[in-house]
Amino acid sequence: MPQGQPLVTPEDGLSTKQRRNRPLVMVHTGDGKGKSTAAFGLALRGWNQGWSIGIFQFVKSAKWRLGEQTAFEQLPAGFGSIEWHKMGSGWSWSRKGGSEDDHAAAAAEGWAEIKRRIAAEEHDLYLLDEFTYPINWGWIDIDDVIETLANRPGHQHVVITGRRADAKLVEVADLVTEMAKVKHPMDAGQKGQKGIEW
Amino acid sequence: MPQGQPLVTPEDGLSTKQRRNRPLVMVHTGDGKGKSTAAFGLALRGWNQGWSIGIFQFVKSAKWRLGEQTAFEQLPAGFGSIEWHKMGSGWSWSRKGGSEDDHAAAAAEGWAEIKRRIAAEEHDLYLLDEFTYPINWGWIDIDDVIETLANRPGHQHVVITGRRADAKLVEVADLVTEMAKVKHPMDAGQKGQKGIEW
Repeated sequence: MPQGQPLVTPEDGLSTKQRRNRPLVMVHTGDGKGKSTAAFGLALRGWNQGWSIGIFQFVKSAKWRLGEQTAFEQLPAGFGSIEWHKMGSGWSWSRKGGSEDDHAAAAAEGWAEIKRRIAAEEHDLYLLDEFTYPINWGWIDIDDVIETLANRPGHQHVVITGRRADAKLVEVADLVTEMAKVKHPMDAGQKGQKGIEW
Repeated sequence: MPQGQPLVTPEDGLSTKQRRNRPLVMVHTGDGKGKSTAAFGLALRGWNQGWSIGIFQFVKSAKWRLGEQTAFEQLPAGFGSIEWHKMGSGWSWSRKGGSEDDHAAAAAEGWAEIKRRIAAEEHDLYLLDEFTYPINWGWIDIDDVIETLANRPGHQHVVITGRRADAKLVEVADLVTEMAKVKHPMDAGQKGQKGIEW
């Protein structure tokens, strides 16, 4: 929601246009609903701009399929492109099945692939969904993530979702929204439902 | 993100399945980015479920076109359907152009149309984007909104976005997320950019 003037004009030697088009690191964190949904909505915006978009879903089970994935597959050519990758297929949200070492190795390999793509400037937007968890579990090194993001070449946006974003991630980010839970149906005994949760 | 068991099981005489499929009123509020993006992401999920979705965009200028609108128009038949309406074409975010009376009348007429559709059970999901503003400006009666939502027939989900959601709206809602701004590029002098803000 652009609402006119920025609060301050920084003395960074950049023109307004250069500053406007600066690539962003965005973080959606907090305990509330909407972190991933907003990131997928952003992917749709980028698609409309003709961007190459890489979605990397961490943590959620490979069996867990979001409506967005099907919808993105139905989008026609002639705009952007959206690739959807599940990192470490077979692990689940609850870390059941497979050993923890398997999960950690799969997460590390997923991150290595993302690093390769960032170095090759493969995408305009990287969506690292639920990426805070493997970081917080120590499966992916936060300092490596920060350095990769801070020194990424070219013009590449990155959006990261997940609860309890590391303070270093918040520090390196340009835009951080905390989706705070004010009220959730699960607190009233309701379970997730189609169209809302997936 | 379904994470297993709800915290409590209410004694409401409903089966788990009935409770699971209960229609929701959802509110995305707060000063942070992601309120509308998350709502549009939700529309995409509903579309994948075959839902009829009505999007009613309040406040933003008719000239203001979001990437999501183009993307939704490109989705094929065979799933759900998405109608996109701009309520009160011609007004702008900043309320420039046209008299305030014109804006108020356009907003009231927009809401009257939504009420007619809710009574007719026209959609599975209503997305009332930026709907808190005309309520807060006194253009739409909050008590009428609450009564309409609380007594809506059939199985109709509603998601409402905008800052400073009225306390009554929070009260009637099943799910409320506050998108809180932790950091925003505009605070650092950056303006909005394509793919991110539109």
